[in-house]
Amino acid sequence: MSGFFITFEGPDGGGKTTQVELLTEHLKQQGFQVICTREPGGTEVGNAIRSLLLDPAYTINSRTEALLYMAARAEHVEQVIRPALVQGKIVISDRFADSTFVYQGAARKLSKTEIVAINHFATQGLLPDITVVLDGTVEALLGRMQNRGNRDRIEQEDIEFHRKVRQGFLDLAATEPQRVKVVSACEPVQTVHRNVLNLIQTGMTERCR
Amino acid sequence: MSGFFITFEGPDGGGKTTQVELLTEHLKQQGFQVICTREPGGTEVGNAIRSLLLDPAYTINSRTEALLYMAARAEHVEQVIRPALVQGKIVISDRFADSTFVYQGAARKLSKTEIVAINHFATQGLLPDITVVLDGTVEALLGRMQNRGNRDRIEQEDIEFHRKVRQGFLDLAATEPQRVKVVSACEPVQTVHRNVLNLIQTGMTERCR
Repeated sequence: MSGFFITFEGPDGGGKTTQVELLTEHLKQQGFQVICTREPGGTEVGNAIRSLLLDPAYTINSRTEALLYMAARAEHVEQVIRPALVQGKIVISDRFADSTFVYQGAARKLSKTEIVAINHFATQGLLPDITVVLDGTVEALLGRMQNRGNRDRIEQEDIEFHRKVRQGFLDLAATEPQRVKVVSACEPVQTVHRNVLNLIQTGMTERCR
Repeated sequence: MSGFFITFEGPDGGGKTTQVELLTEHLKQQGFQVICTREPGGTEVGNAIRSLLLDPAYTINSRTEALLYMAARAEHVEQVIRPALVQGKIVISDRFADSTFVYQGAARKLSKTEIVAINHFATQGLLPDITVVLDGTVEALLGRMQNRGNRDRIEQEDIEFHRKVRQGFLDLAATEPQRVKVVSACEPVQTVHRNVLNLIQTGMTERCR
């Protein structure tokens, strides 16, 4: 595939949406064709699954939760991500497989081996070229979220859960340093954007070598 | 676990709903505590997933479909089936894991090894004590369905698909003859009921030995 696949990951409150928008805008101005998407979602059935997953009214056990994320991802890869990459486009996704490894694996303690195998089934082995983890202390990121409106089912988890999530992403970056890059989310928005941009440009240049 | 877990399987149009009702009624009259349920569904989030799966308005690829069935099953096992079995009840489910092996595995050609592994994750290894496959020729069973109203997304598949489904269930029974029993669905309702009852009574007697 000739395209380039970028994912943004990290705990809630890290400013992923803003950074995805800034990066998309920058790359489009440089003349790239960019598809900007998110998980769970990105397709019609994916958005319906997203509504189920984030609705605080439902009781959902960890295994069901993991399988619903994977179901949304299978459709997302098949309908949106892979076709765009085949056409040589840049795909930027707000969350992807690493979120499942961290939220359902590291934080909810499901078997990593099983989660990885199911993810392989869902994605048919597709991996991002580069993954940016927007990181910050749990206190700083939760503080930002308090300025938002209603919090969804995952955001309502306790602080211990959010600590495990942060640690899960940092561990992932330590395990796969080539693909997963940590960027401090606690700098001014334009500083974070410049740091992200440097990483992406380096990654794209290395891919072209 | 001290309960007894019965599943009904087979192509659409085999009269599963009627036979589940007759069996439930009979066992209750014998003094058993019986939980009667179905897949996909059986829980609040399971029913929401069922609506997605059967809605002809959605485009859903085979992998997403398999993962959605598994997600509904994980919740069903955790919230309904396992707790009832632990309490010593009889659980009767209209469809369970074998439907995924046959519809998504045999008919849609997904990898059997992967489907079995994901099902193990979803059910934590729970298997039915006995599975009744209500079998008939595709022509006979489709003929019955034409008397029904609107057909769902799966029922709308072509005749070749339904043939693969029937063969998938027969192959399954040949592979696991101890657990999976084939009953002709083309006899009068009360004859089918008596045949089912004989199988269940034999199965329960053997379990008690």
